[in-house]
Order: sequence, then structure tokens, then C-alpha cells
Amino acid sequence: MSDVARVAGVSSATVSYVLSGKRPVTEETRRSVESAIEQLGFSLNPVARSLRTGKSTMVALVVPDIANPFYALLARSIQDELRGRGYHVLVSSTGARRDEEEALLHEVVHQRFAGVVMTPFRLATDAFDVLRSAGIPAVVSADVSFGDVDLVTPDADGAVRETLAHVAATGRRRIGVLAGPLDATGGDPRLERIREHAAGAGLRIDREHVVHGEHTREAGAEGFERLMRARTRPEAVLCGNDITAVGAMDTAERLGLDIPGDVSLVGHDDIEFASLVRPRLTTIRYPAREVGRAAAGLLLEQIDGRTRRRTVRVAAAFVARASV
Amino acid sequence: MSDVARVAGVSSATVSYVLSGKRPVTEETRRSVESAIEQLGFSLNPVARSLRTGKSTMVALVVPDIANPFYALLARSIQDELRGRGYHVLVSSTGARRDEEEALLHEVVHQRFAGVVMTPFRLATDAFDVLRSAGIPAVVSADVSFGDVDLVTPDADGAVRETLAHVAATGRRRIGVLAGPLDATGGDPRLERIREHAAGAGLRIDREHVVHGEHTREAGAEGFERLMRARTRPEAVLCGNDITAVGAMDTAERLGLDIPGDVSLVGHDDIEFASLVRPRLTTIRYPAREVGRAAAGLLLEQIDGRTRRRTVRVAAAFVARASV
Repeated sequence: MSDVARVAGVSSATVSYVLSGKRPVTEETRRSVESAIEQLGFSLNPVARSLRTGKSTMVALVVPDIANPFYALLARSIQDELRGRGYHVLVSSTGARRDEEEALLHEVVHQRFAGVVMTPFRLATDAFDVLRSAGIPAVVSADVSFGDVDLVTPDADGAVRETLAHVAATGRRRIGVLAGPLDATGGDPRLERIREHAAGAGLRIDREHVVHGEHTREAGAEGFERLMRARTRPEAVLCGNDITAVGAMDTAERLGLDIPGDVSLVGHDDIEFASLVRPRLTTIRYPAREVGRAAAGLLLEQIDGRTRRRTVRVAAAFVARASV
Repeated sequence: MSDVARVAGVSSATVSYVLSGKRPVTEETRRSVESAIEQLGFSLNPVARSLRTGKSTMVALVVPDIANPFYALLARSIQDELRGRGYHVLVSSTGARRDEEEALLHEVVHQRFAGVVMTPFRLATDAFDVLRSAGIPAVVSADVSFGDVDLVTPDADGAVRETLAHVAATGRRRIGVLAGPLDATGGDPRLERIREHAAGAGLRIDREHVVHGEHTREAGAEGFERLMRARTRPEAVLCGNDITAVGAMDTAERLGLDIPGDVSLVGHDDIEFASLVRPRLTTIRYPAREVGRAAAGLLLEQIDGRTRRRTVRVAAAFVARASV
């Protein structure tokens, strides 16, 4: 501190006021202190910044389900990116509940978090306005846009077309979908993409072959059972994520159905599970590490002063294994 | 608020002062307001308490690795227990690094969290003193005791004896262990328990058959390879957790070794993976849900005023599947 004071030509007390913001200083004084800090090779670390701005060094990651390994890996990725800048990532799981999602955004503001990365599930698309008013950087990782909040979003059309072509090439025609719940914000874009490209691949989706439910193993097991007990059974089932696909496998085993002999199965995400289950799961890979890197990058840009909104697209990819 | 004021015989403004702590009130006034609140069936919710005490409604869960499903399930369990009381659980992953562990405890104090549940890995056993000074409730979930901090700890001797007897009954004699790193706080109690009970089961552990490494899939793969390339190969390998066991399976597959034909494998924890891999993993179950319930219970007791230290033991259990 005394070095900084000497270089800036001010007293140590003044340096302390600049860093802590406890007493007003002139813009000129602030600038000379900050340039002295820079000159001496110090960086304004988050703790110092936190003292000045009242913001913490904590970044919140708010996700629907921490027990879904996709989000655990996303957390690790964001953490790896932010650690070098002195930020700590704290993960909160909303159980896909809107009241929890709202409460957590409230906490982020109340506790003056340094930023938030969120995958909203039932949140209103204008819910991030409170963060903007509070000047807290935010990034959404989702299929759906949330106003003018930075967005990391999948580029998945190619992967879906490839997946459907692969299913069609095995002679399957009638496909079913384990879709997400009807009241999710923005509906179910994964279902919409499948619908959009099915006909082009020569596949049909009967009305009774779309089942809506939560993205859990239990819901996957139930949904798959409903599809298997339909008047005409779908020949391939595309799942909302790999967790629901594992649930579908539970049901297949219980009903004595062979995958892919009796019915093909496709997951989504490519979590670690997907290559461990038997048969190994054919899936659409959405790379959690890359998504995390992109989200952390956008967040840091905002922390560093960018205000113009950005969107980053992360490519999904078809992964052929043994379940189709 | 006006009901409370009427019952307490004070003004609404006074009720507000009591709740917010913004202006001093006499002890008598505070008591009459609080008893009025109770009488009317309101509870002092965390937000009101937070306004008074400056503490937040956030509880931190600090774990070595959020990508280990054991901790994800622990998080969900603690969250389920605390949600009803209005608390939010935020999970932070230290990567088993001591500097991160220390930094996070610092954040917990700095941000006035309502409490912390932690599985320390390399932290000094007196590191929780800062929380005590700050009056922040803490619970440790670990094999090792951290001073006078509340502890949730496994009762695992029975399960380990049963596991070793099961291994011995298949005719195996020389066992190996994929142990944790040498510099973890308190060493590796899982390894010590196995050592303690091995001879009683008629099993031997050669010096070269204990390999130390992190609790990751990669470290498990490497450690298992070292064991398989030892001069004499162990006939059964006990792993530090299920993740390292999955790593061991990777290596077995690569080396063309059959489990349990060529070598038996035992995991630890019984995460969801354990019953999904092939062969299904024989393991020692440490029930994350129960551990979470116990930890949340201890934390709430402290929040409600208990100060005398408590320890809760959670029983581990042997789970026979197909890898032994």
C-alpha cells in the first residue's frame, strides 16, 4: 500500500479510501492511485473490488437439477474458467420450480453476487430485469432467449437431422418423444426441433407418441411405459435428456424389452452415464465443458465492462453408440 | 404487521424496528413483539431474521467434487430438509484444494451465510474457529473430527468386515486398495478400516498393493493399472469410492481383464453409477440422503440455539452385486 501511495504521490490513507470507497476522493486522485497500482504490477483483485463496490467474489450458477451430471460438469467448467480471476462459483438447484428460481435471483441481488449464470426452467422471460437494475452481470444458458440477457444456446439442427437420418436408416418409421413438461418457459425446443425435421427424414410422430414429463429418471420410466403400452408402439424413442433415457431403460428391463431389438432409444446431452449403461446410449451430445467456457467468458466480459448483448452458439453433435 | 402491533400494544413502526434492528428498542419491547408474533402463529422467517441479524438465508455446502454424484445427492437431500425453513443451499466445489477450502470458509463468514455444511479434504482441523467467532453454525460430514464442530460420520466397521468376509468367501486372499492421497486431513480412514479388519477375514495386503491417488476416475484408472502390473497381482481391489472403481473398470476393459473373473472389484458410496455399470458394482453403501438429513438436522438445531457439540453416526452397508 505504501508503495502505491509513493508512486501515486498521495498518502496511504488516500489509497485506502480509493480501495474501500469509505470516503469520497476526486476522480483525479482515483485515477492516479489506480494507475500506480497497475504500474506496480498489482491487479485490482476481486476482494479489493468487492471492498469498493460492495459486491462479493461469488458467482452463482442456478440450475434445475444439481443431481443431473450435465450441470455438475457445467459447474466444474465455469469454476475452472473463473478461479484464475479469484471468483468462487456457488451452485444452486431449483428443482425446476419457478418460486425457487425467483427466490434465488432475489438472493443474488440481495447478497450482491458478482454475477449469475442460470439455466431457467419456468422463470418469466423478464425476470432478469432486477439484475440489470442492480448492475449484476447475468448469462442465460438455454434454448430460449430471456430478454436482452447474454445467451449461450445450442446449435442443434444439424445434430438432430443426423440423428433422425440414423434412426430412419435402421428401418424405423414411427418415433416417440419423451418431452419436457408443458409449462416450461418457451415450451420444449428439443421436441420442436425433432418435429421440424422428422418428416424430412421420412419419420412420423403420432400425437399419442409424445409424452410430457419432468427431466427425471422416474418420469422417463413412466413416460416410456406409457409409450410401450400405446395402441401402436413407437419403434424408436427420443428422450428429453440422458437421465430420462436411463429411466426408459429401467422400464425396458422390467417389461423384458430389448434395446434396440424391440425399440431404439436416443438420449440427449451425453453425460458420463451414457457410455456406462448397457447398451451404451446413442445420444445427442451437448458439450457441458464448452457451454461452461462460453458462459464464463460472457460473464467475465460483462464484469470487465461490455454492455452490448451477445449470444454464443455451441454446436450439438450426434453420437452413435449401441441403443439404435 | 398491524395485527402484531395491536397484540403487542406498540406502534407498527416499533414492530418494524424490532424486525429490522434499524433502531434500538428495549428488551421488554422486543420480547412483547416477538411473543405477539408467536401468538399470531407467524414464525420469524429467515428473511425477517436476516434483516435483523444481517445474516442471509443462504446455507453453503462445501464439497471436494460437485461432479461426484454422491455430493450432488447430498446437496439435494440437505436442500429438501432446509427448503421448508426458507433456506437456500449453495454448493461449492473445492477440487479438494486446501486454498479453495480456506477461501470458501472466508466467503461464508464475509457474506454472513446462515450456516455451512462441509466435507473438508485438506483443511486444517482448527479451520472452523473463524466460523465460531462469527457465530455461524457449521457441520462437518467426514471420517475425521474437526475440533468441536458438529460431525456426521460413518459407522462403517460392520460393513467393511462383511465386505472382506464376502471377498474371502470367493477364495481371494491378496487384496489391493486404491486409497486416497497421502496428504488428506486425517489420512485415509477408509484404508485404515480395511487394514484393521483384513487379517481377521484371512486376507493380506502387501505393501505394493496400496496405491494412493485422488478420488477421480482418471486416478482410479491409473492406480488400477499399477496394481495390475505389480509383480504379483492382487486378486481383489477395494476402491476409495465408486468413481475410482469406474476408472478401474476402464483399465480392466483396456487390458482385457474380466471382472470378477480375473480380479474382483469393490467400490464405496453406492452412487447411481454403481448399479448401471456392467458388471454391476459390489460396493459399500454410504447413504447420501441420510447423511444430508443428519447434517441438515444438526445445522437447524444450531440455528435454533443449541450450542453443545453433537456427533451423528450414519451406518454404511455392504451391497453385493456382480463385481466380486
